[in-house]
Amino acid sequence: MLRRDQSIFFEQCVAERLVSMQFYDFRLAPSPTKVRIFLAEKNLEIPTVIVNLRKFEQQSAEFLAKVPSATLPALELDDGTVLVESHAICRYFEELHPEPNLMGEGAKEQALVLMWHDMATLEGYLGIQEVYRNGQEYFKGRALAGPQGYEQIEALVDRGRKRVEVFFDKLDRRLGESPYVALDRFTYADIAAYVYQGFAKRAVGTDPAGGRDNLTRWSEMIAARPAVNTATS
Amino acid sequence: MLRRDQSIFFEQCVAERLVSMQFYDFRLAPSPTKVRIFLAEKNLEIPTVIVNLRKFEQQSAEFLAKVPSATLPALELDDGTVLVESHAICRYFEELHPEPNLMGEGAKEQALVLMWHDMATLEGYLGIQEVYRNGQEYFKGRALAGPQGYEQIEALVDRGRKRVEVFFDKLDRRLGESPYVALDRFTYADIAAYVYQGFAKRAVGTDPAGGRDNLTRWSEMIAARPAVNTATS
Repeated sequence: MLRRDQSIFFEQCVAERLVSMQFYDFRLAPSPTKVRIFLAEKNLEIPTVIVNLRKFEQQSAEFLAKVPSATLPALELDDGTVLVESHAICRYFEELHPEPNLMGEGAKEQALVLMWHDMATLEGYLGIQEVYRNGQEYFKGRALAGPQGYEQIEALVDRGRKRVEVFFDKLDRRLGESPYVALDRFTYADIAAYVYQGFAKRAVGTDPAGGRDNLTRWSEMIAARPAVNTATS
Repeated sequence: MLRRDQSIFFEQCVAERLVSMQFYDFRLAPSPTKVRIFLAEKNLEIPTVIVNLRKFEQQSAEFLAKVPSATLPALELDDGTVLVESHAICRYFEELHPEPNLMGEGAKEQALVLMWHDMATLEGYLGIQEVYRNGQEYFKGRALAGPQGYEQIEALVDRGRKRVEVFFDKLDRRLGESPYVALDRFTYADIAAYVYQGFAKRAVGTDPAGGRDNLTRWSEMIAARPAVNTATS
C-alpha cells in the first residue's frame, strides 16, 4: 500500500498488479466510511472495489466466495487473507502506519479509545441499526446484515430511537468535558462517533447535533478536517 | 499491579493502600469473566471488589457515582480514571504486560484477533443476550444492561436463538480449519468465544458444543488451561 502523494507510482503498481491488496467499499454505508476516513487521515490509498449494496452485490456468488459474511467493509491482503469488521481493518493499518496515531499511545490511551469506540458502537450504532433496518420496506427479511434472513421486529424501531437519544446525550455530556471523544486529540473514537452521527441523521431522521451544543461544536470541528471531507464528499 | 507469584508482597501493598487500582467483578457475569481469564493467563492479580448484580448493587448510588454506565466489569486506575468495557480493560493490561501475548503480534495477527473477537461479540454474544434478557421474568424492564429501563421484546427470544445457532455453526467451521479461533495459538478471541459458549449453555439452555465436533475439541482444550480453570472455578 502507498501514500496518496505517491500516486503516479501507485497507479503504475496497480496496473502491473504489484499491489494486490483490495478494499471492498460502498460509500453510503457507515462501516466502510469509518475505514475510508481512517485511511485518508493516514494519507493512504488502497485499490478499491465498489460493492453496490443497493444492487445486492454483496450477495453475489463471486463476492460470497471471498467474503462469506456478506458484509462491508472487507480487505483482501496480498496473501489472500480477507479481513472483515471495520475496527479490525483499521487496526491493521494502524500497526503498519503508526503515524499519525489514531488508536492511542500507551496503555491508558489505547484503553480509552477502545472503550469509547465500543460504547459508541454497542450503544449508538446498534440503536441506529434497530431503527433503520426494522422500519423500512427495503429491509424486509433482512433486519440484520449478513447472508441469513432475519424478519423485522417493529418494536425495535421505538427501542432503537430511545437508545439513540440516550447515547447521543451521553456523547454530548462527554464532549462537555473533553474536546474529543476519547482523548484530548482526534482518534478513531471520533471517526466512529462522527460516522454514527451522520448515519443517525439519515436513518433516524433527526440530527443528533440539534440541541446538543457540545456535540454540535465537535461535529463541526470533525467535518472541517480535510481527510474527513475527502473521505465523505 | 503485581504478578500472582508476588502475592505476599501484593497483600502487603493492598493493606498499605500502595495499590489503589480496583477491579469491579461479578463471577457469574460473562463480561467480567473474560477479564478474569485474561488476568489469570497473564498471571496478574488485581484488588477486586465484588458487585453483586443479583442484588442490584450496580444500581447503588455509590457504584453509579464511580461507574455511571452501571455495567461490569469496571477498572479504576490509580489516577481515578474508570475504564468500562471488557475489551478495553484487557487491552490496558495487554499493553502494560505484553507477555504472554494474547492480542496478536504485528498487523495481521492483531487484525485477526480483533476481527474474531468482534464477530463473536456482535453475532454470538448479542444473540445470547437477546434470548437471556428478553425471556426471563427477572429482566422485566431491564432487557438491556445499563441504568435505563428497556422493556422486553418477546420476538427477540426466537431471533436470538437463531443467531446463536448461526454463530456457533460459523465458529465450528472455523475451528475445523484452525486449532484456535483467530490464530494457531491461544488469544483473547478464544477467551471471548469460550466465555460466550459457557454463557449460551446457561442462558439459552443448549450446549453449543453438543454435536459440533470442532467446537467440542476446542472447548475441552480451553477448559483444561490452568488459568481458565483458576478464573472460572
